[in-house]
Amino acid sequence: MHPLKDKACIVGVGETAYTRGTDRSVLNQMLRAAMSALDDAGLKPHDIDGIVTAMPTPTVEHLAANLGIPDLRYSASSNIGGAAAVAAVQTGAMAVALGLANTVLIPVGWNAFSGGGVRGAGRRSGGVQLPPSFGLTMSEYYMPFGLAVPVQWLAWLARRYLHEYQVPIEGPAAVAVAARKHAQLNEKAYMRGRPLTLEEYRNARMIAEPFRLFDCCLETDGACAVILSSAERAPDLHKRPVYIAGAAEGHPLPADDIPGRREFLKIGLRFAAPRALAMAEVKIEDADFLQIYDCFTHIVLLELEALGVCKAGEAGQFVQNGRIELGGDLPLNTHGGLLAEAHVAGLNHVVEATRQLRHECGARQVANAELGVITGFGDLGDGSLLVLRR
Amino acid sequence: MHPLKDKACIVGVGETAYTRGTDRSVLNQMLRAAMSALDDAGLKPHDIDGIVTAMPTPTVEHLAANLGIPDLRYSASSNIGGAAAVAAVQTGAMAVALGLANTVLIPVGWNAFSGGGVRGAGRRSGGVQLPPSFGLTMSEYYMPFGLAVPVQWLAWLARRYLHEYQVPIEGPAAVAVAARKHAQLNEKAYMRGRPLTLEEYRNARMIAEPFRLFDCCLETDGACAVILSSAERAPDLHKRPVYIAGAAEGHPLPADDIPGRREFLKIGLRFAAPRALAMAEVKIEDADFLQIYDCFTHIVLLELEALGVCKAGEAGQFVQNGRIELGGDLPLNTHGGLLAEAHVAGLNHVVEATRQLRHECGARQVANAELGVITGFGDLGDGSLLVLRR
Repeated sequence: MHPLKDKACIVGVGETAYTRGTDRSVLNQMLRAAMSALDDAGLKPHDIDGIVTAMPTPTVEHLAANLGIPDLRYSASSNIGGAAAVAAVQTGAMAVALGLANTVLIPVGWNAFSGGGVRGAGRRSGGVQLPPSFGLTMSEYYMPFGLAVPVQWLAWLARRYLHEYQVPIEGPAAVAVAARKHAQLNEKAYMRGRPLTLEEYRNARMIAEPFRLFDCCLETDGACAVILSSAERAPDLHKRPVYIAGAAEGHPLPADDIPGRREFLKIGLRFAAPRALAMAEVKIEDADFLQIYDCFTHIVLLELEALGVCKAGEAGQFVQNGRIELGGDLPLNTHGGLLAEAHVAGLNHVVEATRQLRHECGARQVANAELGVITGFGDLGDGSLLVLRR
Repeated sequence: MHPLKDKACIVGVGETAYTRGTDRSVLNQMLRAAMSALDDAGLKPHDIDGIVTAMPTPTVEHLAANLGIPDLRYSASSNIGGAAAVAAVQTGAMAVALGLANTVLIPVGWNAFSGGGVRGAGRRSGGVQLPPSFGLTMSEYYMPFGLAVPVQWLAWLARRYLHEYQVPIEGPAAVAVAARKHAQLNEKAYMRGRPLTLEEYRNARMIAEPFRLFDCCLETDGACAVILSSAERAPDLHKRPVYIAGAAEGHPLPADDIPGRREFLKIGLRFAAPRALAMAEVKIEDADFLQIYDCFTHIVLLELEALGVCKAGEAGQFVQNGRIELGGDLPLNTHGGLLAEAHVAGLNHVVEATRQLRHECGARQVANAELGVITGFGDLGDGSLLVLRR
């Protein structure tokens, strides 16, 4: 058995409200989310002895000082864009599995709407700011081709995918419509109260071909947090433990050069998925639901193929006819995801998966959910995934 | 036995030349150091499947793409200032111990002299840049007191230490003189050819009281790198393996507020040291040498006390009369350290410890060296340490 399998559990999850507009700094949002997750676990800030961030800022020292953590024993950061939140959970699980920390906090705050995102970095004090050399990669590899923002960076990947496989527009549309449908059952979802029809999807304006407006994730303000502890200790805490059965990270080759990549569609998740599934000793067919990093709908299709849910080029067919909706064969992004709940860099997918596996999701609960797979996807093609089980 | 003990080995070390002045970017320096360490291990770039950085930049993607790594399986970053390099080795060891990566690269590049340091961040393309919120911590906690650079940030800590214990000037002087003495036996040391007398130490100009010029570490350009692999695989590689017997990280309370800290002298290393020594199942007296993070001489004294080498306030006496020099009871910073070899954020201490434990150090070799302790110290009081054994 893999030495990381089932050794760490998610014992608490929480979040702030997801809004457009906030006066709170990202640090403030993260602290509030951390308190919410601690409350969920029945733990106090002083119980935290590990912090893994999915961004180098705010620093662990900021978080630890503000939480009053008396003995921080482990810290690290994952800096692989949208794949970082899920990868951070893996690193936190490693610290727990090896006994280096008992209670690990993984917080993500992302005030993308109010100024913490790529374009508005630094507009507000305490805003998350990307590492300067992320900008360097972009300026070296992307800007020369006229690609300035994520919706442009990834449009090339999506164009190539559509070109190779003649993916029908009903494919990405089904992802967008399902996300919005699920959001109607999630009181925290920013898009609650605003369902989306296929007609509206088709008629939406083009942002960067092939991405129409509703192919694109939200930009929102807010934070969420996850608390990990060991499999030995977890049963003594407030909520039913959710086991980290498998985890992995993967990168495409070359790792930071999407425009020049030879095997353009071979995203990092394609390398990572077999490892995480093997660690968990499951097959992708065993998953009761998927929470897939949904920066853009077409990327969700690519990820489904990388996971082995369907063959290359077939995801656009696979997702149709309600298959990925609640009640379908394989419910996907049951909270609404980045497309319709909020953009919290994908840690909200882990929060939702945890609640699904605890059977806490009410109207949007996947019946008898026992196993879930959660992915991360970075702008450079980085991939990460978790296999969680009840 | 602790599940991390002796599971990972250092199998390769390397560095660039240490200079003042370079036209190479930090990324370029790191890649050269990585190639040197790979060569030392008898490995190739494509063998690397994990990267742990001690700074969020350059990103793992930069490093992986430039090295042509085909299957990067794990990445993380430690962002705790001068404690990060040693903490990064711990995280790399975790990935190896859990089988998540077979060959982990830990590279540190630091063109502090030519523009990669705190003040010159970004002057050269590819320069290491600190996370923006490191500046935020400083602007919130330090700048209001007039403290703009590390030599000022830590002067308060040193002043309080001197005040509490009436530490004789011969204490910090002994650290400075020993470092320079050892550098004369190290062909890579920037200060080779420039020994230091006690008289010169005393007569040097004051930089920020109590730090005189030679209490302060160098600002140099260069990079070094460490390669880790598993204890099973290490014996098959080129060089004798050096085992990571113990590792830990620790933070003071509160974690980012030195000026307001109640127990001002209780640095993070005080929390971390007992854990790492317990993991390694050794006592500090078992160490044949120490490589201590030497940003400033007085900080070395504080670290010796935190390690339990001597009691609080006694390090200034302990280090005198050649005790920490080669041939003394407890040789310290046998390469010259940050004070006299180069400032590579402390990863060069790990490189030197590895060579000492392989008995490769020629004129500066510690006879029969079997066990070494290496520390990191961050500007915010963060601490980290490794216990390495032959």
